[in-house]
Amino acid sequence: MNGIASLQVGEPVDHYLLIKQATKGVTTMGKPFMTLILQDKSGSIEAKLWDTGEEHEKLYQSEGIVRVGGEIHDYRGKAQLRIKAIRPVANDEGVSVVDLVPSAETPKEELYEQLMQFFFEIKNPQISRITRHILKENQDEVMTFPAATKNHHDYASGLLDHVVSMLKLGRAIADLYPTLNKDLLYAGIILHDIGKVVELSGPVATSYTVTGNMLGHISIMVTEIAKAADTLQIEGEEVMLLQHMVLSHHGKEEWGSPKKPMLQEAEMLHYIDNIDAKMNMLTRALGKTVPGEFTERLFPLDNRSFYKPTID
Amino acid sequence: MNGIASLQVGEPVDHYLLIKQATKGVTTMGKPFMTLILQDKSGSIEAKLWDTGEEHEKLYQSEGIVRVGGEIHDYRGKAQLRIKAIRPVANDEGVSVVDLVPSAETPKEELYEQLMQFFFEIKNPQISRITRHILKENQDEVMTFPAATKNHHDYASGLLDHVVSMLKLGRAIADLYPTLNKDLLYAGIILHDIGKVVELSGPVATSYTVTGNMLGHISIMVTEIAKAADTLQIEGEEVMLLQHMVLSHHGKEEWGSPKKPMLQEAEMLHYIDNIDAKMNMLTRALGKTVPGEFTERLFPLDNRSFYKPTID
Amino acid sequence: MNGIASLQVGEPVDHYLLIKQATKGVTTMGKPFMTLILQDKSGSIEAKLWDTGEEHEKLYQSEGIVRVGGEIHDYRGKAQLRIKAIRPVANDEGVSVVDLVPSAETPKEELYEQLMQFFFEIKNPQISRITRHILKENQDEVMTFPAATKNHHDYASGLLDHVVSMLKLGRAIADLYPTLNKDLLYAGIILHDIGKVVELSGPVATSYTVTGNMLGHISIMVTEIAKAADTLQIEGEEVMLLQHMVLSHHGKEEWGSPKKPMLQEAEMLHYIDNIDAKMNMLTRALGKTVPGEFTERLFPLDNRSFYKPTID
Amino acid sequence: MNGIASLQVGEPVDHYLLIKQATKGVTTMGKPFMTLILQDKSGSIEAKLWDTGEEHEKLYQSEGIVRVGGEIHDYRGKAQLRIKAIRPVANDEGVSVVDLVPSAETPKEELYEQLMQFFFEIKNPQISRITRHILKENQDEVMTFPAATKNHHDYASGLLDHVVSMLKLGRAIADLYPTLNKDLLYAGIILHDIGKVVELSGPVATSYTVTGNMLGHISIMVTEIAKAADTLQIEGEEVMLLQHMVLSHHGKEEWGSPKKPMLQEAEMLHYIDNIDAKMNMLTRALGKTVPGEFTERLFPLDNRSFYKPTID
Amino acid sequence: MNGIASLQVGEPVDHYLLIKQATKGVTTMGKPFMTLILQDKSGSIEAKLWDTGEEHEKLYQSEGIVRVGGEIHDYRGKAQLRIKAIRPVANDEGVSVVDLVPSAETPKEELYEQLMQFFFEIKNPQISRITRHILKENQDEVMTFPAATKNHHDYASGLLDHVVSMLKLGRAIADLYPTLNKDLLYAGIILHDIGKVVELSGPVATSYTVTGNMLGHISIMVTEIAKAADTLQIEGEEVMLLQHMVLSHHGKEEWGSPKKPMLQEAEMLHYIDNIDAKMNMLTRALGKTVPGEFTERLFPLDNRSFYKPTID
Amino acid sequence: MNGIASLQVGEPVDHYLLIKQATKGVTTMGKPFMTLILQDKSGSIEAKLWDTGEEHEKLYQSEGIVRVGGEIHDYRGKAQLRIKAIRPVANDEGVSVVDLVPSAETPKEELYEQLMQFFFEIKNPQISRITRHILKENQDEVMTFPAATKNHHDYASGLLDHVVSMLKLGRAIADLYPTLNKDLLYAGIILHDIGKVVELSGPVATSYTVTGNMLGHISIMVTEIAKAADTLQIEGEEVMLLQHMVLSHHGKEEWGSPKKPMLQEAEMLHYIDNIDAKMNMLTRALGKTVPGEFTERLFPLDNRSFYKPTID
Repeated sequence: MNGIASLQVGEPVDHYLLIKQATKGVTTMGKPFMTLILQDKSGSIEAKLWDTGEEHEKLYQSEGIVRVGGEIHDYRGKAQLRIKAIRPVANDEGVSVVDLVPSAETPKEELYEQLMQFFFEIKNPQISRITRHILKENQDEVMTFPAATKNHHDYASGLLDHVVSMLKLGRAIADLYPTLNKDLLYAGIILHDIGKVVELSGPVATSYTVTGNMLGHISIMVTEIAKAADTLQIEGEEVMLLQHMVLSHHGKEEWGSPKKPMLQEAEMLHYIDNIDAKMNMLTRALGKTVPGEFTERLFPLDNRSFYKPTID
Repeated sequence: MNGIASLQVGEPVDHYLLIKQATKGVTTMGKPFMTLILQDKSGSIEAKLWDTGEEHEKLYQSEGIVRVGGEIHDYRGKAQLRIKAIRPVANDEGVSVVDLVPSAETPKEELYEQLMQFFFEIKNPQISRITRHILKENQDEVMTFPAATKNHHDYASGLLDHVVSMLKLGRAIADLYPTLNKDLLYAGIILHDIGKVVELSGPVATSYTVTGNMLGHISIMVTEIAKAADTLQIEGEEVMLLQHMVLSHHGKEEWGSPKKPMLQEAEMLHYIDNIDAKMNMLTRALGKTVPGEFTERLFPLDNRSFYKPTID
Repeated sequence: MNGIASLQVGEPVDHYLLIKQATKGVTTMGKPFMTLILQDKSGSIEAKLWDTGEEHEKLYQSEGIVRVGGEIHDYRGKAQLRIKAIRPVANDEGVSVVDLVPSAETPKEELYEQLMQFFFEIKNPQISRITRHILKENQDEVMTFPAATKNHHDYASGLLDHVVSMLKLGRAIADLYPTLNKDLLYAGIILHDIGKVVELSGPVATSYTVTGNMLGHISIMVTEIAKAADTLQIEGEEVMLLQHMVLSHHGKEEWGSPKKPMLQEAEMLHYIDNIDAKMNMLTRALGKTVPGEFTERLFPLDNRSFYKPTID
Repeated sequence: MNGIASLQVGEPVDHYLLIKQATKGVTTMGKPFMTLILQDKSGSIEAKLWDTGEEHEKLYQSEGIVRVGGEIHDYRGKAQLRIKAIRPVANDEGVSVVDLVPSAETPKEELYEQLMQFFFEIKNPQISRITRHILKENQDEVMTFPAATKNHHDYASGLLDHVVSMLKLGRAIADLYPTLNKDLLYAGIILHDIGKVVELSGPVATSYTVTGNMLGHISIMVTEIAKAADTLQIEGEEVMLLQHMVLSHHGKEEWGSPKKPMLQEAEMLHYIDNIDAKMNMLTRALGKTVPGEFTERLFPLDNRSFYKPTID
Repeated sequence: MNGIASLQVGEPVDHYLLIKQATKGVTTMGKPFMTLILQDKSGSIEAKLWDTGEEHEKLYQSEGIVRVGGEIHDYRGKAQLRIKAIRPVANDEGVSVVDLVPSAETPKEELYEQLMQFFFEIKNPQISRITRHILKENQDEVMTFPAATKNHHDYASGLLDHVVSMLKLGRAIADLYPTLNKDLLYAGIILHDIGKVVELSGPVATSYTVTGNMLGHISIMVTEIAKAADTLQIEGEEVMLLQHMVLSHHGKEEWGSPKKPMLQEAEMLHYIDNIDAKMNMLTRALGKTVPGEFTERLFPLDNRSFYKPTID
Repeated sequence: MNGIASLQVGEPVDHYLLIKQATKGVTTMGKPFMTLILQDKSGSIEAKLWDTGEEHEKLYQSEGIVRVGGEIHDYRGKAQLRIKAIRPVANDEGVSVVDLVPSAETPKEELYEQLMQFFFEIKNPQISRITRHILKENQDEVMTFPAATKNHHDYASGLLDHVVSMLKLGRAIADLYPTLNKDLLYAGIILHDIGKVVELSGPVATSYTVTGNMLGHISIMVTEIAKAADTLQIEGEEVMLLQHMVLSHHGKEEWGSPKKPMLQEAEMLHYIDNIDAKMNMLTRALGKTVPGEFTERLFPLDNRSFYKPTID
């Protein structure tokens, strides 16, 4: 059965769906209704539930799973689900949240295995030990968290997917520019976003935690590196270099890095992070666009639309 | 005897002076010479040493102390010292570096005592313990370091002077706006710049350390707070709140804070820091200006000149 | 009886309310209705009046007073008043507009008395005379006008409330930085926003006047100072200094000051104005927020949300 | 005899010259000398006077007139005057400062006459009376002041030259866009820069006055219009409109206008002012450039160089 | 009969109208409807068609012509057309699209004739030949295209109207500043926007073409000039100068010119383009505003509102 | 023999050198001298020639070759060449300019061969034909020109070196992100900077041509692509796509691209260009820096200094 986000207007719906968001509303005539954002692995869709009361608000809450019958229709140019039947799912139906959230295409175990292959190439013992320590402490979260709440790699295991993709790009670039220190670059790529496992709430219905809002994943990880070095009784320039790699990876102060990159590996980490995030967005947006047309506007790419050529 | 920076053109010089900076040069005709920046507590002055050789370069190095005879003359509108006699000072002459660097007007012991009075007002035990721990670990440096390499509070014990002045202002403001949490505000003021004891090299000939350049005093102190909390086995919101106070005190990302203030006390800390730094610069600049004239341009104040009125 | 803005969803309403704004509308089905913004001292709330005609539009106009019965309900997460009964208020019911607009907590007479205490501390006769002249000419408006149409001190006597609060802060700061000239600072604080009595329309349903839009309160007051000096036959630097204090109090050209501050007192006036405005907004926003949550976004504070800690 | 600024390297000098600036210096070997900026109507040139003493400093001060013999030579690519003989000019030699400062090509009386022709076209009596009043009060200064200290119309009667040129342009444009109110536009052009007669020190060795620095010509003139209206007992929109024309003529807050233009005539005044200033600079710079080359960089034109084509 | 955009609320409608835009919608209750933007020469108005089906969607498509009966009513402060009767127009009713789109007031033939008068003043043969070649190749489009999709000269023959108006302004300015080369200026004005005949889709329901989006009218025309010169076998500086005129006419890189103006004629072309576009917008906006009021906000004029004075 | 730029202070000089720049000067005492910038493949050094006359100015002009004897000494912290003997080189000494200018490490023939390997991978016949046509027309210049006058790849064959390095990076990236069209990406990389062969003057003493200044290499190449397509009678989207690749490769309007990238390949071209330019600068700067120190400030990298770690 096709995913909910790939159905065309007019197609029937009979799907298990996760309630991503549930909001109450009142029509201009004063009648209560609910707006549900429903999702499966393919994406999400909006639906309205009319003439709702308190019992509906209890039954249909965020992060609940429902079985929905209905039809796709067009509302102001966007697909919407017209609900004909809806009911909460029973425990014995064997449907769980992870079946209904988008996730990396490659299984997370395989991605982690790939990450470890790069990790094993790190030769400097201080860099290697600090990196391993932090990876171990956060292994579960690193394997399941998204890299962001939206825009790029915003799905389960998105963080890991992003890091592995960056490592591949990092190796290709370091092979071309041999003055780059691979130890620093690989460790920087692995560690740079792990602070997100504290900054974000988790793989489902992802939001920012209070600590995430107040400190940010950069400062969280800079602190973690210092603590790891203390625990492992490591001193020396490596600690500061790794902190700087993480600290500066947003590239500019106005993008949240308290220092601009001052290592060539830090400069490159910033480029690699940027390229991988942008390519993830572009590939997704162009995948939804027919040749000869422009994509929707992509906010993090200066709100640009991209053209999909008609040539092969 | 008047300080070197307060002498008028034509006045004789016979002073102990500290070499702040020593640079070699060659005249347009190819003759070698040295430019010395010499200082005592009153400030600094430039001097030239003509026809110098290797032996002079060894004798007269940065941070050495010399006895100089000569006269003040005018060079392109600026006072310069014309050296008639110069010799390195012997150890038994009893002149030490601290006698020749500018420092806070109030003795550092007295300033520290004032700081502790404010500290004792902090009631929240977690905030108090973390603050005390960090103060203790860095007491010597906190008592002697400047707050900056130039512009404001750029003298021995300038950091302490700045903090005490900010605490006084903080108390006055918290009395007027009672929703402010004094514990957070005082601890934030005390801790906000202590990272400078790692960022800067020390009270004499102050420069940035490599770690200072690469991490910055903000990230250094955010890390220190986390470590202190670990050592003291303190958990809870206070740790994060103190980290945020320090993290955000520059007020904006482009000024080096990875997060803007999101606590009213953090917002106020930023204002207080700004006011005390600016008033320190303005008071100094206006002190050197006669009524009816403008000060020199002050770079950190948008390069403005300020007018000194002729009215009482 | 609780004010309209402090009622919870479900609570009944039987209040005298002022119509702050009345707008006509048509439902998507073509039926006419009216949207009323109704207020009392506690704040304002939105209400809909369905199936309205010309007679309703005449009865329920902006600045009219009504007696409303109904109930608070929730509309898209915001409280709304569901009107069950509404009628215009008769003259003999003894309700007047001033009973229904928010105003400073301290009575305006008391605030004015406090302002005068500061005024009497001004020693320079020229500064004192100009300030008194302008205060006298505008006393009624100074006592009743808000300081702004929204954001901060946007209530009756808000201008006076703001000025008195700034004077208190000004005294505390001038005590700590004794090079500040108190005469200039106090007069600057008193005069800086009086141009708003021309710029704004008045304490109720405040909007910008044409002259306010075209000239702005800064230029209006700079002109008034010159006229006052002419009338009082005062010459000398004080006139220019006061004009500069007012001229520069927005701190930067892009914020509407044709000159940046070039007096230390003008620089300080800008800081004090900023702190008092921001604290007014923050106190209000945090007052509506529960501990552990963030405030709504505050546009004039860079659109930030502020966190309300859970510690005491 | 050719003016000093048009002589080539190697040509002899025997000229009356005005000392625009006189500064003392010391050679790297400690010998005193003076740097003189000398000018006549054609422009200015630098000269050195070697081995000078106190008597020279008294004889050759800024704004003094001298008779100089010597030769033009090249110093680092710029023409310099090598002085062979110099003496102060006696009163009976009949040379006065006005003979030696650059000025508008058209005599100032003729320019003023042209201005008045435009003035007489103003029909609105309020606008006409206010404009005439201010013109009369400042007639001498309007006829002699420059429009700026540098960049454009920075010569005696430059202000008047600029205003007349703008009036011509204003008429041409108003003829093409008939919705423009000529009364407002002409009066705006005439008044917009008259505040410069207070802001600047005068036609020779022009600098900013203290009042000019602190208030700026815009606020000075806005105040003058209000005073003129008071004196003439004129009320009504015209006063505010004229104030707005002057207030907004820099076009943007960051360029010193406390309000952006909100009248189409004010918008046009800003364009006309800009065009006339830029054309004055461009014509001058291109006049000094040979075809096929670029002009020097012009700072107020975004530091651009302009190309002078080789075609007719 | 008055145009659709000039009717008042309550007035009856019985007009031929062009469907500028047709969009489907669904009411909050799930009923389908259509929103039509209908226009004639006077402007456009919104209308709703309720309970529509597939047959309506076919009958009433963008660029179709309809006969509509109904009435003007007020919807949220904006005029809306309440449709009582609507039908597609038959071919034999003699109504064509050009009768229903706004266009320049002067007939396009007359405007073109005026343009040619200016063209004939160009003396330089190279400039003249290139300009004539491009004009000829694009004559039909130049005569009918708008200058933009919105904001200014956004009507049939708007491009030509804009160019002729600019030529008149150009002549007036070149007469006042005689160093300007009229050949370059006139040719630059004529050519600067012709690239729009490729960038835009045409005079009706104007949108951007794919090529327009990807290359822009500036690069399109720079290329055309090079091709014309090749075809005409013209070499020499004129080609490059004309390319530069077109290239730089947006004035700044951030406004889409890859080079800033480096010819005084290019600088002036930018000013003239700007003035004519802004005056077109201002005249239109003020025409719809009553004296004593402000216009709507004008986005391309920094989102300002302009005041319409009450004086004559 | 070591290159001139790698000699230490005190080492003797007996080298053939190219005069990169020759400027006349006068000492403060009025004596004429010349400043020569002399270079060989290793870099350049400054030298002074004292007491020079017209005959020296003729003998020692820019782009001449000289034989120089002397010694390296230190002038204000920079190496300078003290000339003891100098003479112009005779034709029969067999020294030519190309022996004395820095150039790519790999021979240009080999680089071109590598470029062609990538070229042959282009499958789309339109893209391939246009690219080959332009390459052929400019082959000599493409093989010898630098990519810039300074900062990166600013040596003979620097353009080719840059392009080949970008092609390698492009292949590595396209292998990782398979949605990228390799034909477009390779052709874009090959063509993007070929306009520099018109924009710049050549491989020696490189400067901007007039056409380069006025049009820029982007517009020059966009035009060339159109002409090539005309010549080859190619129509279709490929022409526009290639033009867009070149047009947008600076990434933003303010960096000289009239359109931002709207193809994913164009976005990637911009990243690749940036990375290769930055790595070229960083590698060079770090090569001159000892571990534990910072590089000089690098202007195109936001004026940052980069740290060279002490770890392996």
